[in-house]
Amino acid sequence: MSQPVLHAALPSFANVQEAAARIKPYAVVTPVLRSQVLNVLSGAELSFKCENLQRGGAFKFRGACNAVWSLDDEQAARGVVTHSSGNHGNALALAAATRGIPAHVIVPDGAVRTKVEAIERAGAILHRCANNQAAREAKAEEVRAATGAELVHPYADARVMAGQGTAVLELLQQVGGLDAVITPVGGGGLNAGTAIAAHGVSPQIAVHGAEPTGADDTARSLAAGQRVGPFVPDTICDGLRTLVGEANFEALRMHRVEVTTVTDEEVIAAMRLLWNELKIVVETSSATVLAAVLKRPERFKGQQVGLILTGGNVDIDALPW
Amino acid sequence: MSQPVLHAALPSFANVQEAAARIKPYAVVTPVLRSQVLNVLSGAELSFKCENLQRGGAFKFRGACNAVWSLDDEQAARGVVTHSSGNHGNALALAAATRGIPAHVIVPDGAVRTKVEAIERAGAILHRCANNQAAREAKAEEVRAATGAELVHPYADARVMAGQGTAVLELLQQVGGLDAVITPVGGGGLNAGTAIAAHGVSPQIAVHGAEPTGADDTARSLAAGQRVGPFVPDTICDGLRTLVGEANFEALRMHRVEVTTVTDEEVIAAMRLLWNELKIVVETSSATVLAAVLKRPERFKGQQVGLILTGGNVDIDALPW
Repeated sequence: MSQPVLHAALPSFANVQEAAARIKPYAVVTPVLRSQVLNVLSGAELSFKCENLQRGGAFKFRGACNAVWSLDDEQAARGVVTHSSGNHGNALALAAATRGIPAHVIVPDGAVRTKVEAIERAGAILHRCANNQAAREAKAEEVRAATGAELVHPYADARVMAGQGTAVLELLQQVGGLDAVITPVGGGGLNAGTAIAAHGVSPQIAVHGAEPTGADDTARSLAAGQRVGPFVPDTICDGLRTLVGEANFEALRMHRVEVTTVTDEEVIAAMRLLWNELKIVVETSSATVLAAVLKRPERFKGQQVGLILTGGNVDIDALPW
Repeated sequence: MSQPVLHAALPSFANVQEAAARIKPYAVVTPVLRSQVLNVLSGAELSFKCENLQRGGAFKFRGACNAVWSLDDEQAARGVVTHSSGNHGNALALAAATRGIPAHVIVPDGAVRTKVEAIERAGAILHRCANNQAAREAKAEEVRAATGAELVHPYADARVMAGQGTAVLELLQQVGGLDAVITPVGGGGLNAGTAIAAHGVSPQIAVHGAEPTGADDTARSLAAGQRVGPFVPDTICDGLRTLVGEANFEALRMHRVEVTTVTDEEVIAAMRLLWNELKIVVETSSATVLAAVLKRPERFKGQQVGLILTGGNVDIDALPW
């Protein structure tokens, strides 16, 4: 069987452009929404890129789909594997289905039932393991070694970052131009891909990140000039509890990304605004971007700001208000 | 002062096309969403026209905007008036603002606070009255006589119907073609406008309506061959508690509209599906169309079906589940 291949280096702008062409037959061109009420409230001109309306309900499909369709036929036949049981796991299952290849998804004990069901419905082969990072990685490696499936990491993978960067590329085509763009920051795949894509189009675009105060390792790492160590996350933003990846962090530094931290209360208030004013279902992680813009009116005043709304996979029976 | 002018006759297909051109600078081209899960569940190919993402959060803006921009300058200067404190009142206020003319909205005691606030925020002049149909109509007539404002009825108005018919016109342009289209039925403005517009494009398109069992006067009227009298509505679909208009009913008969009735339980189940699968906020009235399609799989099997999702103005603190 093959050895694990690392894809942690950063993609180029050309890689993002290639990804856009590669995923075009499968990904949704998601709409851009605007709200006069939110413009007045923020003092800026906001364009919301609705990746909650992407296939699988999250931007993750873009990265997973690019990874799946980057494989040569021989590798593709052996399938793909990941240890994310959230939106990325679901996205990889959906992407693998577009190519008719097996997707193996590691599901830790205690994973959210509805998410696991969605992954199963998408056709993935589930592998159970204990609920910790080491067990998940070990299980993924075990499956990889046994099947030859290609590991597709949720954020430390250049193919995934390139695919995720296509969201802002599409947004820029839809709106014509932006002064700034902001994405949530967890592992940093979307933010790094966004920075590379946006600056490929125009180096003048300011790239921002939004991070919950209860998982603010990226903000602290940027302040310290180096990656801080593991931490215990304490935030309702379940998609952002991850330590920023190594290459991802380097990309954020290189591209001078500004990260704004927001409290869970600010996230919930922003989430309510998005539901009420845009009439869309977005998850907590997505709301960080609006919370950050509203928190720093002086920073965004009068600007054309693109906000990537990352996903809409919410338990509507357990809303945080 | 001028005498009241009735606009209860039906619009022509040409009127719908004129309306589309007239509202183009102001209305949102709303996106069309699809879901593999809902296709499998229904056995049909569903295209959801997201009028919940329209300005003001409802399709009502199309009709109100067409009415406002149909006025000559002299009449426009005197403003517009309506006795709907719901989505139509809000839409008329927003539409009047696009032309910089006064909008008078009659607000009955006990109207939903958030809706009244939205209408006020849109710049309308509010007029309070007692909470019954006679008081609302009397107050509207009083305001009309005093100000010369043009009455824009929520559904018994050809300009309103023509504007509302533009939604399906746009949908047909977006998807290329449909076997059937379905809208909720309350006063019948949207459904009549939809029938006129759809059959103007292709007489082969089957036009359907969805009505709550607790406000099924249109279904009963079609069955009886004549309009049944007033009734006491009993449904959570607050936008559909109206008796179908006279001209509206004639339009539905002429266009051989099939109306399917759905229970509140079926509406709530469909609403949950729309939130979970499409990731959008829709109100109860909108969910009737999916409920109707799911209720009659044999009727829609294998068809390309367009579903007009009418609005997203929901109190997210009081969801019906």
